[in-house]
Amino acid sequence: MKSYEIFLSNAEAGRHVCVGLDTDITKIPAALRSYKDPLFAFNKMIIDATHDKAAAYKLNFAFYEAYGTPGFDSLKKTVDYIRSVSKDIFIIADAKRGDIGNTSKMYADSVFNWFGCDSITLHPYMGKDSLDPFFENQEKLNFVLALTSNKGSNDFEKIRSEEGEEIYKTVIRKCRSWYPSVNCGFVVGATNPVELSENLDILGDSPLLIPGVGAQGGDAGEIASILGRAGRSRFLINVSRSVIYASQGDDFAQRAADETDKLNSEIRAGFSKTV
Amino acid sequence: MKSYEIFLSNAEAGRHVCVGLDTDITKIPAALRSYKDPLFAFNKMIIDATHDKAAAYKLNFAFYEAYGTPGFDSLKKTVDYIRSVSKDIFIIADAKRGDIGNTSKMYADSVFNWFGCDSITLHPYMGKDSLDPFFENQEKLNFVLALTSNKGSNDFEKIRSEEGEEIYKTVIRKCRSWYPSVNCGFVVGATNPVELSENLDILGDSPLLIPGVGAQGGDAGEIASILGRAGRSRFLINVSRSVIYASQGDDFAQRAADETDKLNSEIRAGFSKTV
Repeated sequence: MKSYEIFLSNAEAGRHVCVGLDTDITKIPAALRSYKDPLFAFNKMIIDATHDKAAAYKLNFAFYEAYGTPGFDSLKKTVDYIRSVSKDIFIIADAKRGDIGNTSKMYADSVFNWFGCDSITLHPYMGKDSLDPFFENQEKLNFVLALTSNKGSNDFEKIRSEEGEEIYKTVIRKCRSWYPSVNCGFVVGATNPVELSENLDILGDSPLLIPGVGAQGGDAGEIASILGRAGRSRFLINVSRSVIYASQGDDFAQRAADETDKLNSEIRAGFSKTV
Repeated sequence: MKSYEIFLSNAEAGRHVCVGLDTDITKIPAALRSYKDPLFAFNKMIIDATHDKAAAYKLNFAFYEAYGTPGFDSLKKTVDYIRSVSKDIFIIADAKRGDIGNTSKMYADSVFNWFGCDSITLHPYMGKDSLDPFFENQEKLNFVLALTSNKGSNDFEKIRSEEGEEIYKTVIRKCRSWYPSVNCGFVVGATNPVELSENLDILGDSPLLIPGVGAQGGDAGEIASILGRAGRSRFLINVSRSVIYASQGDDFAQRAADETDKLNSEIRAGFSKTV
């Protein structure tokens, strides 16, 4: 199955939870810290407990790069482990890359070929030729940063152009015209549901990766309800900290599973809600 | 010596050449490919031949990440090797990172603490709180992407806001106000010298990292002349492919040294030229 087909098949089956593996050694249960590879040990237990509930895992590269080569190793082992337990899980490299063409090609090689991920998050700032090398991998799905969930999204993303369009909307509009197929998705934050509603037209049926639920304040049910009413099923709602650190005790994996169940229920209820 | 002091001391001494280690295994001499760590073997020979001529090395992270964990290892060994041969060389992580606060902090840890680089290149798209964690390392020097050297710079960077200012200029203006100290620099491409001239006012005395010379078409002498006439010495001109791949034969390191000498002469001549 092609990478974007994994995404589509989960979306059509109503599976929308993306578990963010922002694995921080200072936040995992103390008992795991003495393991040879604590990051992988933690991830493995989270994956074992949630892989039949989650549609996707999102690997936040920074959290592994902070530990250098051993961290890179934990990342690779995590991707391989996810593949070994399920072929139906979509794996996102949340690496936020983007550079001139010959360099972006190398980043694409790293994430798609060496790590074997299905998808990556991309910075649009440098324009089309910085994105092209990722889109040349037509089986993969790229999420271009549009409107992010942080306060800083006001600084540049929301600047209005002389044509009266906010930059992030220009990003969406241009990328949709450059890459009209299903393998062009967007990151759109959940912290402001009103903005999500307002952007449904411009987003069309593009796949959405929606961060900002949980620790950042967004509400999964509300987001699902907005998308459900619009008949849009191509989305993943990412939740990191509130799932993987639901407990810092020995029950952390079970609690992560419980939180994932809870999110699935909230999303299902929201999605099917009619006004 | 603090990282930014290495940069300043080189700039004041008229040392402006940054050698870009975009080391590509398909482009290095065939004889080196059978080495256990070909990327590091190549870098070591380039560094041995150029460290008394270059002001800085710029490590293009993508070229190492493409080889996964072993590539990350080559990168770390390269940084350590540069430090071992000279304390006067400025080391730039050309990693183009940028994410929400807790994630940017991890990227900063990776590049500054684990790798031990002096500097990093950053994507501004996500705004101030995505940049802050890098600037909290006050001894380091961050180069924020402003106007890049690729064709795609027309797509978003040059969009004019309703206030009539191109986005990349807003990036420069806002970052200079957020981070008024010398540790905030900018990436400004060399492919269009007219634009560099026009931007001198807004850039003020901010450190500049100038890519686009050589394979991408920019002219080092012309750039140096523009900066020299304006009395600006805080700049690095990066050259990658035209230096490190000046020859694909056994003489590659010597030819890289010759090209670095040539660039130093062109920059010196350009910088001291009066109209």
